[in-house]
Amino acid sequence: MTLPDAVPAPREHAGVFVSFEGGDGVGKSTQLRLLADWLAGRGRDVVTTREPGGTPLGVELRRVVMHGDHVAPRAEALIYAADRAHHVATVIRPALERGAVVLTDRFLDSSVAYQGVGRELGAEAVERINLWGVEGLLPDLTVLLDLDPRVGLSRLTGAPDRLERAGVEFHERTRRAFLDRAAADPGRWLVVDAARSAEAIAATVRERVAALLGVTP
Amino acid sequence: MTLPDAVPAPREHAGVFVSFEGGDGVGKSTQLRLLADWLAGRGRDVVTTREPGGTPLGVELRRVVMHGDHVAPRAEALIYAADRAHHVATVIRPALERGAVVLTDRFLDSSVAYQGVGRELGAEAVERINLWGVEGLLPDLTVLLDLDPRVGLSRLTGAPDRLERAGVEFHERTRRAFLDRAAADPGRWLVVDAARSAEAIAATVRERVAALLGVTP
Repeated sequence: MTLPDAVPAPREHAGVFVSFEGGDGVGKSTQLRLLADWLAGRGRDVVTTREPGGTPLGVELRRVVMHGDHVAPRAEALIYAADRAHHVATVIRPALERGAVVLTDRFLDSSVAYQGVGRELGAEAVERINLWGVEGLLPDLTVLLDLDPRVGLSRLTGAPDRLERAGVEFHERTRRAFLDRAAADPGRWLVVDAARSAEAIAATVRERVAALLGVTP
Repeated sequence: MTLPDAVPAPREHAGVFVSFEGGDGVGKSTQLRLLADWLAGRGRDVVTTREPGGTPLGVELRRVVMHGDHVAPRAEALIYAADRAHHVATVIRPALERGAVVLTDRFLDSSVAYQGVGRELGAEAVERINLWGVEGLLPDLTVLLDLDPRVGLSRLTGAPDRLERAGVEFHERTRRAFLDRAAADPGRWLVVDAARSAEAIAATVRERVAALLGVTP
């Protein structure tokens, strides 16, 4: 059974949309903050956000998924897609339409990697359902902070959440999924070795974002 | 962009799956109870359930959608699909596999009618996403209790919820969607005039269910 031709072409917008992807502990939030500071210092309207939980509804959905009992894998995938649909409709799309630079800690590619490949629900199905949810919106740039998951997970402190507890083999699969997606669409993706220093990574990211904005890094 | 060939064929099961559909106030819960009592009186293993909110996770999701602030329409559709995916995986499918008769107050057709047609998200897209969520499971019989929405809504007491507040025009569209789906697949659907007496309706439903079970009504 084929899912229908239900995903419209992305709408045009005046902004720039950048997502940060990669496993837990690779430094996404640090890089997002460094890039946001640099952009704000250049006078740009910057919106920083995250998934899941970038909206009040999303916080509720994240709580339901992360801290409840067993959640059926397809239900989990659909809840993340719902979080994303609401996030795009109420935060990301309005910001892009007014011309802001939107930086998000995780976006659609996380669902493809974690639910589609990691949980083996099918990368293509998860991608299509999420594209339907966000009416076709994809980032202009996706920064993949790539790191051996054993290194990334060892950096984390505090109690592990459900995904962190899923084991190294799960995270190896998701890492490979991110790398495969990046290789298939180099125009959208920037792959960075997350074992480098935060400042060296930030410089690489700034260079690519500057090119996207048509400014000097 | 086409959604993929992601919906497997329904698995075989030993049970019988019946859904009750129709607008608010048409008497679904009354008919479900009457049928359940009749089946139980004949010694059948009967499971009665509902959507949304047929599981602890679903109760949480229902609360998030029904009583929160504005929910983006695609997010709402995906949350109902998540509720359903979890409901099927943890309640409906296990019951069917042990041979039970499962009666549910609303199922997938409600999402197609309310989100696909009522909210104008596209009947086909909403159906496909939901079929992916439930791995292709459809009822053996769907009883549509058909009624003029002005009559149904006037029967309701208590505070209106979000769907009830949506207005008569919305409910006219969803009524038409249910009737169109029933007309397109008469083997699965039984359309009943919900203005008749509860006992007359129950007799009609029993007759069809008896045929499905191969017993006398």
